[in-house]
Amino acid sequence: MTVLPEHMTASVLKGVREMAVEQRPLPVPERDEVLVRVSSVGVCGSDVHFWAEGSLGDWVVDAPLVLGHESSGTIVAVGADVSPSRIGSRVSIEPQHPDPTSSESMAGHYNLDPGMRFFATPGVDGAFAEFVTIQSHFAWDVPDTISDDAAALMEPLSVAVATIRKAGITVGSRVLITGAGPIGVVIAQTARAYGAREIIVSDVSAARRQQAMTFGASETIDPMVTDIASLGLDVDAFIDASGAAAAVQSGIHAVRPGGRVVLVGMGAPTVSIPVPLIQNRELIVTGVFRYANTWPTAIELVASGRVDLDALVTGHFGIDQVEAALASTTEPGVLKSIVNPGR
Amino acid sequence: MTVLPEHMTASVLKGVREMAVEQRPLPVPERDEVLVRVSSVGVCGSDVHFWAEGSLGDWVVDAPLVLGHESSGTIVAVGADVSPSRIGSRVSIEPQHPDPTSSESMAGHYNLDPGMRFFATPGVDGAFAEFVTIQSHFAWDVPDTISDDAAALMEPLSVAVATIRKAGITVGSRVLITGAGPIGVVIAQTARAYGAREIIVSDVSAARRQQAMTFGASETIDPMVTDIASLGLDVDAFIDASGAAAAVQSGIHAVRPGGRVVLVGMGAPTVSIPVPLIQNRELIVTGVFRYANTWPTAIELVASGRVDLDALVTGHFGIDQVEAALASTTEPGVLKSIVNPGR
Amino acid sequence: MTVLPEHMTASVLKGVREMAVEQRPLPVPERDEVLVRVSSVGVCGSDVHFWAEGSLGDWVVDAPLVLGHESSGTIVAVGADVSPSRIGSRVSIEPQHPDPTSSESMAGHYNLDPGMRFFATPGVDGAFAEFVTIQSHFAWDVPDTISDDAAALMEPLSVAVATIRKAGITVGSRVLITGAGPIGVVIAQTARAYGAREIIVSDVSAARRQQAMTFGASETIDPMVTDIASLGLDVDAFIDASGAAAAVQSGIHAVRPGGRVVLVGMGAPTVSIPVPLIQNRELIVTGVFRYANTWPTAIELVASGRVDLDALVTGHFGIDQVEAALASTTEPGVLKSIVNPGR
Amino acid sequence: MTVLPEHMTASVLKGVREMAVEQRPLPVPERDEVLVRVSSVGVCGSDVHFWAEGSLGDWVVDAPLVLGHESSGTIVAVGADVSPSRIGSRVSIEPQHPDPTSSESMAGHYNLDPGMRFFATPGVDGAFAEFVTIQSHFAWDVPDTISDDAAALMEPLSVAVATIRKAGITVGSRVLITGAGPIGVVIAQTARAYGAREIIVSDVSAARRQQAMTFGASETIDPMVTDIASLGLDVDAFIDASGAAAAVQSGIHAVRPGGRVVLVGMGAPTVSIPVPLIQNRELIVTGVFRYANTWPTAIELVASGRVDLDALVTGHFGIDQVEAALASTTEPGVLKSIVNPGR
Repeated sequence: MTVLPEHMTASVLKGVREMAVEQRPLPVPERDEVLVRVSSVGVCGSDVHFWAEGSLGDWVVDAPLVLGHESSGTIVAVGADVSPSRIGSRVSIEPQHPDPTSSESMAGHYNLDPGMRFFATPGVDGAFAEFVTIQSHFAWDVPDTISDDAAALMEPLSVAVATIRKAGITVGSRVLITGAGPIGVVIAQTARAYGAREIIVSDVSAARRQQAMTFGASETIDPMVTDIASLGLDVDAFIDASGAAAAVQSGIHAVRPGGRVVLVGMGAPTVSIPVPLIQNRELIVTGVFRYANTWPTAIELVASGRVDLDALVTGHFGIDQVEAALASTTEPGVLKSIVNPGR
Repeated sequence: MTVLPEHMTASVLKGVREMAVEQRPLPVPERDEVLVRVSSVGVCGSDVHFWAEGSLGDWVVDAPLVLGHESSGTIVAVGADVSPSRIGSRVSIEPQHPDPTSSESMAGHYNLDPGMRFFATPGVDGAFAEFVTIQSHFAWDVPDTISDDAAALMEPLSVAVATIRKAGITVGSRVLITGAGPIGVVIAQTARAYGAREIIVSDVSAARRQQAMTFGASETIDPMVTDIASLGLDVDAFIDASGAAAAVQSGIHAVRPGGRVVLVGMGAPTVSIPVPLIQNRELIVTGVFRYANTWPTAIELVASGRVDLDALVTGHFGIDQVEAALASTTEPGVLKSIVNPGR
Repeated sequence: MTVLPEHMTASVLKGVREMAVEQRPLPVPERDEVLVRVSSVGVCGSDVHFWAEGSLGDWVVDAPLVLGHESSGTIVAVGADVSPSRIGSRVSIEPQHPDPTSSESMAGHYNLDPGMRFFATPGVDGAFAEFVTIQSHFAWDVPDTISDDAAALMEPLSVAVATIRKAGITVGSRVLITGAGPIGVVIAQTARAYGAREIIVSDVSAARRQQAMTFGASETIDPMVTDIASLGLDVDAFIDASGAAAAVQSGIHAVRPGGRVVLVGMGAPTVSIPVPLIQNRELIVTGVFRYANTWPTAIELVASGRVDLDALVTGHFGIDQVEAALASTTEPGVLKSIVNPGR
Repeated sequence: MTVLPEHMTASVLKGVREMAVEQRPLPVPERDEVLVRVSSVGVCGSDVHFWAEGSLGDWVVDAPLVLGHESSGTIVAVGADVSPSRIGSRVSIEPQHPDPTSSESMAGHYNLDPGMRFFATPGVDGAFAEFVTIQSHFAWDVPDTISDDAAALMEPLSVAVATIRKAGITVGSRVLITGAGPIGVVIAQTARAYGAREIIVSDVSAARRQQAMTFGASETIDPMVTDIASLGLDVDAFIDASGAAAAVQSGIHAVRPGGRVVLVGMGAPTVSIPVPLIQNRELIVTGVFRYANTWPTAIELVASGRVDLDALVTGHFGIDQVEAALASTTEPGVLKSIVNPGR
C-alpha cells in the first residue's frame, strides 16, 4: 500500500501574471469524494484569461487560486461512502460540483445549476496540483488504451459533445465551424464522428486551416479573403468557436431555414445580430455552458478511435512550469499544452 | 344559386401612400382552389409598412399590389378537384401557397419553403378585395359561433400560436412579453390559454398597458420607468412583440437558465445581443416567420372562448376606405382595424 | 416552541390484511431532511394491494411496513444542513429518495433510478404515521389556499401530470381515458387544464361515468355496451387508467396515426397487443412510473383552481382506522379516502 | 434522342402463386411525374406475402397487380411541369404518392397519410416492369459511384434510417436487433454508421448470425440456446426485425429504463406484452411504417461508404424470372434477390 504524503505541490495564481509554486496540505476527500493523484492537466483559454487579466467575464480572481480544469489521474484514496475498490482506477475528471437538489439538476441540466462549484473559478481550486478531490461519480474510469493526456482532454471533448448535440449534427449534416483553435478542431472531429457530411472550417491562420484538414474538416475558408456571408452555404448548423464578432455575424448568414447556431467561443461582450434573418429563417441560436452527461460519450469517441485527442498535444510542462505552459498558448504551432504535476 | 359577377372591387396599392379602388376581373379558382367572397380583413402592421414606405425588409413593392392577408369569407365556387359541397362554407383563410415538394414542406415546415407565395407580398395579391382564391385546404371551416372578424383574425392568432409553441409555454410557465400592440395582446391571451401562471407585459403606453390587463396580462411594466434587465425576473420565456432593440436587449436579461427567447416584433435590422448571457444560461433564441399547422388550434382557442378576438376590433371600414383603415393604425386607442369589402 | 414527543403512533402492516397501531420512536431527520407532522394521507390502490395480498407486482412485503405515500403536513424540525426557517411550513411530500448520482437522476429522470427508495414499498416506511422524514427539497411548500387533503393529493395529481406530459396533451387535443377511478378523473381534470378539447372517459360503472362528467369529461362511454375499438375515434392520445386488458386492447384502436398510448393502470401482467396497428399508425406506447419534476406544476394546477382535489375526497379516517380506510376503497361511491393521523 | 417504345414488359401477379409476363402500354407521366426506365428492383418480403398468400395484413390482392417497390432506373421522359434537364438522371425511387394536403403530410409525416398510394399495394402497380412513373421529387438523383442495385436498395435502407431515428441511436448507443434477415443487417449497418457502440444481433440461423458479423454486428446470440430476457443486457434500444412474437417478448426485457423498442418485423397479428415492464421502466414502444424524409440520408450513407448495400445482393433475375426471384427468398444463403427488367 502506498503511503500518501502530508503535503503536495500546487501552482497558485497570486495575482495578474503572478504564479507561485507552493506546498499545501493534501486535500481530504469528503464522504462521497475520491482523492486523485493528478497525471495530466490541459491548459485552457480560460486559465490564460485568469492568469493574464485576473478575470473572465463576470468572474474576478480576488484571492489565491489554483487553475486547471482539464485533468486526469489515478484514485489513491476514497471518502467514507465510496467503495475502496475504486482505489487504483485511472480516471478522467469532470470538474464540477453541482447542487443535486437545484431545479436545474433535478431536470438533468446540472451544468446550469446556479449553485455550481467548478474547478479553477474564483473560490474553487483547480487541478494544477499533485492531488485533487472530486465526487466519486465525476471521476470517470478510462480504459488502458486511453492515454493520461487524452483522459485529461475529455473535458474540451465534452464541450464539443455538448455543442454537437445542441447543433443537432447527425448523418449527412452540413456544418460551418468558425475558429480552428483547440475547441474548433475537437468540434470538427466530433462532427465527423456524428456523421456530418460536410465540415467547413474557417480561420484567419493558414497554419490552423491546414491543421484543421487533419482533424476532420472537409474544406477550409480564409475569412480575410472570402466573405462567408455571401457564399450561400445553406448549412444545417453554424458553430462559432472563435469568439470573434465578425465570425458570428458572417456565419449566421450561412444557415439554412430552420437551422441552428451554437455560440461556443468567448470574446466580445455583445454582438450585433441580424434579427430579420433569425425571424425569416426561424434560426435557433444558443450557446454552450460547459456540459452535462457527456463523459461516457466522450470516452467512447476516443476509445473507438473516432476522435484523436493525443494529436492535439504540442507540449508538456512540469508543475513548476505552469506559467510557461500558460504563456505557450499564444505561440505559433501550439495547439494544446499539458502540465504533468508528477513529472 | 347565386350568380357571380364578372368583376369585383379591389383596393390596390399603386405607389407609396397611394391607394386606388379598381374594378378587376373575378379571380378563377385553380383545380385545387376555392373562390371566397371576402367578409372581413384585418389591417396588419406589414400592410402599413408597404403602404407608407413601399417596402418591408427585403421586399420592395415595384408593381400594383393588393394588400391584406388576415381574411375570412364564404366559399362561393370551387375548382375542378374540390368537392362542390364546400360551397357556402364560412371560412378563415390561411394566406399561404407553399410548394408541397420542397424539403421544408416535406418536413412539416411549409412556412419556411423558399418558394412560398404569400398574400400581399410583392407579386402576390392579397385580400383587400371582394373575392379571393385560396387552395381548398387553406380555407378552414369555422363554426357559426365565430364572427367574421374573429375568423379573419385567426391569422394574427396563428402567429401567437406559433410563438407560444416555440416559447414552450405550458401549465405554470412564467413569461415576459414586450409590446402590447395587437400581436402582443393576442400572445398574452394565448399564453394564458396554454396555462401560463405569470404573464408580464411591458409597453411604453399607459393605455396599452391598461388594455393588456384585460387581455390576459397578470402585471404590466412601464419600461421607461423600470429597468427590465435588472428586475431579476427569471422567466421561462421572453417574447418580444415590439420590434424595439431596447426591449430585446433588456428582456433577454430576464430569462432563467435554459429559457427561451422568441423574437416576433419587426423593427431594427440588427440588435446588439449579450453573447455571454446566451452562453452562460444556454438561452435558446429564435424567431417566428408566420406559422404552419396552427389554424385548427387557433379555431379551437376562439371556439372554446379562451381567446377573444372580437374584443381587439376598434373600427370597421369599407373597401373604399382602405387608406383610412391603414392610417388608423397609429391613432391612439386603435388596436385592430377591419375592412369589410362587402359593406 | 413546540416540544416534540419521543414517540409517535404509526399504523403498521404486519401481514396480509393485518394492521396494527404501534408506538414508534420519533424519526430523526438526516442532515438534508425535515421532520413533518403528518396532516393528511390519501389511500392509494397500491396500499390496498399490499394490505390485501401482501404484494404488488414484483414487490413482496416480508417485514412490518408502514403504508401510505400521498401525504401532507407541517415541518416541525430540520436536519443540520436545512435552514430552520423551514420550520412551520405547510408542505406536500414528494415521497421519493433517489440516488442523485445515478445516470437516470443525472439525466433528469430520477423516478427511473434503480436505487430509488420510495415510501411504502418493502423496506421503506410510508406516511400512515404521526411523523415522517423527507429530504427538504421533496417537502414542497403549499399556499394557504390549498387544504391539507389537497396537499396530500398532489401525489396522484403528479401521476396525472406525468401522464399528460407523456401523452402530449395540449390545446385542442382529443383524448380517450379508460377507467374513471381516482386516477382516471384526476387525469381528466388535468387534460382539461392543459387545453384538451375532447375528453372521452369510459368506465363500466354508471356512477363513475356520471362522476367523470363533473371532473372534466366531455362525454362518457360504457364499454359493456359500446365497442370502443370500432367507434373510429381517432384520438390524439389514449390513456388507460383501468389496468384492464380489455380496455387497453380496445383503446389502442382508437388512436390516430402518430398518436400516443400511455398505460397508467396496473392490472394484468401481460396484455395481448395488435402489433400491426402500432406499426401501421406508428403509435407511441409507453407507461408511467411515478413522476419527476411535477410538484410545482401540480401545485399551480390546484392553486389556480383548474384542478379540484378536495372534490375527490369521500371519507376521513383516524390513524387507528387505517384498515377501515383501506377497506373503504372498494365501496360504492368511494373515490378517495383520507387518513388524518392527528385527528 | 432515344425513341421510347409504345409497350413494355411487366410481371403481373394474377392470383396466388400465379405470375404472368405481360405487354402493357407504356405509362404516361402526369404533369409532376417522370418516366423511369427501371434498372434494378429488390425483392421484399411483402412482395413474397402477396405472391404466396394473396394478402398482407389487411391488404388483399383482388385484381392483377405488379409487385416490386425497391427500384432504381434512369429518367427517360418528364411531365409538363418537370424540367427536361432531369432526363438522363440515374435515380432511386421513393415509391410513394401521398396527398400533400392531408394533416399528416402537412405536419411532415407523409408516410402516415391515410390517402397514400404506395407501389405494389392493391390498386397501385409497382416496379417489376420495364418502366414506371413517379413524382419528380420522389425520383432521387444518385451519384455514379452508387450501383443500380444499391440505388434500388435505398428503399430498405430508408426503413433502417427511419428505424434508427425512432430508436434514438447515436454515438455510444447499445442496441439489440432480433432477426438477421435483409432488414436486420441493414439496420445493423446503419446503427454502426450512427455511432452505436454495441450491436447485438440474434437469429436462429447460424449462417445469418455469421453474416451479421460482416454487416456491423458486434456480437450475436442464438435465441434457441440463450434466453435474451435473462441476460440483463440493459440496452438503449431494442429493434425487432424478425416479426417473431418470441423475439419481441424476450427482447423487451433487455431494455434499460427509459429505453426504446421499435417493432419493424411483420408477423403475428398480436403479441403478448409485459405491461408492468413498460410501466416500471417507462419504455417507449413504437413501430415503423415505411419512412419520410429518409432518401438524402440513405444516399449519403452509401455514398460515404458507411453502408454497403451491394454486399446484400445474392442473385439477379430477369423480368421473366420474377417468380423464381420471389421463390428464392427462402433459400439458404439468399439475402437479397434483384430483378433487372432490362437484362
